[in-house]
Amino acid sequence: MNEVYVVGAGQTDYGSFPRESYRSLFKEAVDTAVASVDAEFDRESVDEAYVGTLGVGGRQLGLPGPAVTEFAGLNGTATTRVENACAASGVALRQAVLAVRAGVADVALAGGFEVMNDVSSERTGEWLGVSGETEWERMAGTTFSGVYAQMADAHMAEHGTTREHLSRVAVKNHANGAKNPHAQLGFETNLEDAMNAPAVADPLNLFDCCPTSDGASAVLVASRDAAEELTDNPIRIAGAGQSSGRVGLFQRPSLTEIPATQRAAEQAYDEADIGPEDVEFAEVHDCFSIAELLAYEDLGFCERGEAGPYVASGATEPDGERPVNLSGGLKSKGHPIGATGGGQVVEVFKQLRGEAGDRQVSGLSRGLTHNVGGSGGAVAVHVFEEGWA
Amino acid sequence: MNEVYVVGAGQTDYGSFPRESYRSLFKEAVDTAVASVDAEFDRESVDEAYVGTLGVGGRQLGLPGPAVTEFAGLNGTATTRVENACAASGVALRQAVLAVRAGVADVALAGGFEVMNDVSSERTGEWLGVSGETEWERMAGTTFSGVYAQMADAHMAEHGTTREHLSRVAVKNHANGAKNPHAQLGFETNLEDAMNAPAVADPLNLFDCCPTSDGASAVLVASRDAAEELTDNPIRIAGAGQSSGRVGLFQRPSLTEIPATQRAAEQAYDEADIGPEDVEFAEVHDCFSIAELLAYEDLGFCERGEAGPYVASGATEPDGERPVNLSGGLKSKGHPIGATGGGQVVEVFKQLRGEAGDRQVSGLSRGLTHNVGGSGGAVAVHVFEEGWA
Repeated sequence: MNEVYVVGAGQTDYGSFPRESYRSLFKEAVDTAVASVDAEFDRESVDEAYVGTLGVGGRQLGLPGPAVTEFAGLNGTATTRVENACAASGVALRQAVLAVRAGVADVALAGGFEVMNDVSSERTGEWLGVSGETEWERMAGTTFSGVYAQMADAHMAEHGTTREHLSRVAVKNHANGAKNPHAQLGFETNLEDAMNAPAVADPLNLFDCCPTSDGASAVLVASRDAAEELTDNPIRIAGAGQSSGRVGLFQRPSLTEIPATQRAAEQAYDEADIGPEDVEFAEVHDCFSIAELLAYEDLGFCERGEAGPYVASGATEPDGERPVNLSGGLKSKGHPIGATGGGQVVEVFKQLRGEAGDRQVSGLSRGLTHNVGGSGGAVAVHVFEEGWA
Repeated sequence: MNEVYVVGAGQTDYGSFPRESYRSLFKEAVDTAVASVDAEFDRESVDEAYVGTLGVGGRQLGLPGPAVTEFAGLNGTATTRVENACAASGVALRQAVLAVRAGVADVALAGGFEVMNDVSSERTGEWLGVSGETEWERMAGTTFSGVYAQMADAHMAEHGTTREHLSRVAVKNHANGAKNPHAQLGFETNLEDAMNAPAVADPLNLFDCCPTSDGASAVLVASRDAAEELTDNPIRIAGAGQSSGRVGLFQRPSLTEIPATQRAAEQAYDEADIGPEDVEFAEVHDCFSIAELLAYEDLGFCERGEAGPYVASGATEPDGERPVNLSGGLKSKGHPIGATGGGQVVEVFKQLRGEAGDRQVSGLSRGLTHNVGGSGGAVAVHVFEEGWA
């Protein structure tokens, strides 16, 4: 199996950018990724591109992939739009990895974009709802935050998870995001404010929910041979896992587990020949605070049911045993749907190369990204390691 | 590079099916593909699935891939929705090929679906329009048939292509489709009727345009080892090419060439180590009659500018030197957008195995599929050969 390396990664700021287009945002992400490559980089060397976007807005609804890559200076590059709801660019990354492994690409681009802030908040709610199950959830009136609220409620009932446990996720991620110049909500909060924020879908409140965001991300991957030409500071994709699960929450055996995360993680760990205990830090999909707690358990960072005490112990703080969401996560950094999975890679890339500025945690050599579509209908997990294989 | 074989392929009828859902249609296609496998087939052996759909309708807008594979008995299979407008399932097939070549799948599923007939024809027009360029074509009032009409007009002006040449495509494809039980418009027509049909976008008339369709398709591909367990009558995917081009017609150097087809074909021919002269028969993307003529030239079946005389010569009739669209093509068989690329493979699979019923052309051993997204923003080309490598 061909080795695959990340040789560049970049993103736009996440936020509300009414003067930008989906094309200009994606181009900015690609420009930033290209600028991050150690050697001079020729866009014509990109053999394949995978672009993730949910794209239910009013723009290029068919062919958004080629529409953004041509604008980013990649006209003629075989481009495929992939979509697995909020896991769109995590899945795009895996397709880029497979293209290199299959030998059809020496260099491939994976990225994504979303523009969400030019529709009304009512439309945004509908838009997010489409990531849940349509026929028996959304059309029956369940909002997307309502889906995760059911998971939070069940976790509280089954495992004694508390209001404070949920808010600890928000406080940690905002503290991290306050150090990230790309963050949409780059301010700190405190436990009292986070616990007493207005309700969104009980038990989830405003500080349990990520914002709606505009933004884009781009990751450049390369075969071993190509990577040797492009960098002396390689980041290897040691494992790439993907799985799917029941789209509708009601069809799953448990409300407090996401089997697709478990399967995707197992595949990524197997490929990397590691276990969860070997993951030093991670960017996980905290679209809602409960989602980060579920991720701890499904990724094997702690025992089942122990995610609440685990976050409360400080284990996932920057100075803990396993920092999680050093970027600020979806909660603070933002969540432009199609961009999110690629943006997670940007943080891991920077941390592993020692380029994370005020957020830098020293001594990291192995990180993980975890990107969830819907409430667990699709998941991509990647493991990244510093150095040549 | 791992060899890849088609071991099963199936599709629904194409047409208008108000009592079916996108899930039930896709399940039927998968059931049909599974039934076509020579050996007993276990759905749990499918390691990866790629599902193509444009999906601008009112159904599962996020995560349609996992939503249809779970319903088709593939819950837990890593499923990725891909979309490159009308090339969605041609691109899905290539991703399945790459997954097998990369070694992450022994067996993979590629397919697609579309439900188009439950929205008004006005909405369908908008829907198709999204496959063209949005900002400077669609929003400026150009319909999708209008885009192809410009290409037809230019081909007539540059190369002397005639009204009759265009209609010969329709007459041929309807004659073929009349022998296909899956065809939506499975009736014959004649040159006089085809030439005098009502105008749609001058110079294109009703018989120059494919219908709007509901339907689904599914293709099962396997590694050499897995294929040996599943069939004694293997169909090898000898070449898989994909490229992109300018999404907007106005940004291309010529209105009468599709560079993405040329590049995708070159890649597929190179992989298969053949030239266009070695292609015995083909299913090409005749969304409009002019598109089939452009395909002849861009695929290298005839000289540039000679597509009109080429079709008039009978070369692409069932008894000609290179039969094209034996299934009836998009024109007669129908064009449920996301299903089309996979449906093309169904015909090639059947012809190469001698299972095409009344449409069977004897002695075929190498065929090609050509699937176009938009007006040429994305193209997938595959070459299929009978027998083990």
